[in-house]
Amino acid sequence: MSESVQLIPGNSLITATPQEGRELAIKMARLTIRVTQPDDEIRGKLRGIYAEDAAMLIAVGQTVATEFATIAAANNYWR
Amino acid sequence: MSESVQLIPGNSLITATPQEGRELAIKMARLTIRVTQPDDEIRGKLRGIYAEDAAMLIAVGQTVATEFATIAAANNYWR
Amino acid sequence: MSESVQLIPGNSLITATPQEGRELAIKMARLTIRVTQPDDEIRGKLRGIYAEDAAMLIAVGQTVATEFATIAAANNYWR
Amino acid sequence: MSESVQLIPGNSLITATPQEGRELAIKMARLTIRVTQPDDEIRGKLRGIYAEDAAMLIAVGQTVATEFATIAAANNYWR
Amino acid sequence: MSESVQLIPGNSLITATPQEGRELAIKMARLTIRVTQPDDEIRGKLRGIYAEDAAMLIAVGQTVATEFATIAAANNYWR
Amino acid sequence: MSESVQLIPGNSLITATPQEGRELAIKMARLTIRVTQPDDEIRGKLRGIYAEDAAMLIAVGQTVATEFATIAAANNYWR
Repeated sequence: MSESVQLIPGNSLITATPQEGRELAIKMARLTIRVTQPDDEIRGKLRGIYAEDAAMLIAVGQTVATEFATIAAANNYWR
Repeated sequence: MSESVQLIPGNSLITATPQEGRELAIKMARLTIRVTQPDDEIRGKLRGIYAEDAAMLIAVGQTVATEFATIAAANNYWR
Repeated sequence: MSESVQLIPGNSLITATPQEGRELAIKMARLTIRVTQPDDEIRGKLRGIYAEDAAMLIAVGQTVATEFATIAAANNYWR
Repeated sequence: MSESVQLIPGNSLITATPQEGRELAIKMARLTIRVTQPDDEIRGKLRGIYAEDAAMLIAVGQTVATEFATIAAANNYWR
Repeated sequence: MSESVQLIPGNSLITATPQEGRELAIKMARLTIRVTQPDDEIRGKLRGIYAEDAAMLIAVGQTVATEFATIAAANNYWR
Repeated sequence: MSESVQLIPGNSLITATPQEGRELAIKMARLTIRVTQPDDEIRGKLRGIYAEDAAMLIAVGQTVATEFATIAAANNYWR
């Protein structure tokens, strides 16, 4: 792993809207996987696996929920 | 995945009541799965699987609990 | 799923005591499962499975702990 | 399940010390399992299973950590 | 289980540095497992299992992360 | 395990940017695994396993998300 790869698009947790915060959460979750498995072909193959596996899709949802909790707090919940 | 798909209905975490906050948590959890697996037919098939699997139903509950924690904080717990 | 089903008894996170807060956490966790699997017979069958499975019982405990964290914060920890 | 069973010993999250808070976390985690599986004999059998299973012991630790987070916050971290 | 066994070394969440806080998190996670499985020989055997299992090592990391979150908050993040 | 091994690079949770905070989260997650399994060869072998396993990659992402939540809070979300 090269630590210089982008892990947080825009290098900020601040977003204009909850929707954008949610998109950031999804991207951050994906970038962790990319940095752990940098091979595009392998990741593509694994994506085909988890996208058709109910338990793994639920686990993806759990991770996104956790990332989003941080982003939402950073943005004072866009109140 | 198209990032332009709706991830948070109403683009807000603020709801009038805890019940509505809980409904939002459930919807947000589902929308993560939808964006990760956009094929309606496959999702329908997977839903039939997790809806009859005790461990997966518990995992769904864990994700909803995590989403709800964020929404509840955003709404100052509807105090 | 009909979004009109009750997801939070009393539509409030505020309870008089920690014990009542804990009971609410358990109920909320169950209601998520109910809304995801509305068929009483299937749920009854699944309950028989997870109630005799150590790993699933631990997972139920994890979900209840997460729900309770939110309820406890809502009640300022009943200090 | 009878909702009248004790779920939180002392009906309070406040403890004198971190050690007592940790003991409370462990008890709360156990009481969730007890209320979900009230049969003493079955629980005893399941305990024998998870106490010798590395993955389940780790999962127990995760639940206790989550319960403790709430109790520690309730006690202002015993600062 | 005897509740009198030590669950938190020093009976405090306050540490001088993040490093010490992290060490405490690891110890606390281990002590939960010890109190759940008090037999040294069995724990030793189980340690040999999870230390060579990728999924279990990741799960250990999740628990340590959760314990550390509490300790870090207790110490105001050593700011 | 020797407690003297480095668990938090720089012995601080404070970073200049979210990107650096994310890198720290990843390092902290890895150091927990290193201290639990100090053998470089075994860890290398296990890394080859989880890097090609979709479920384990998702679990790695969950742990990183949890570590990052703490780091983000420590840095007041780099607001």
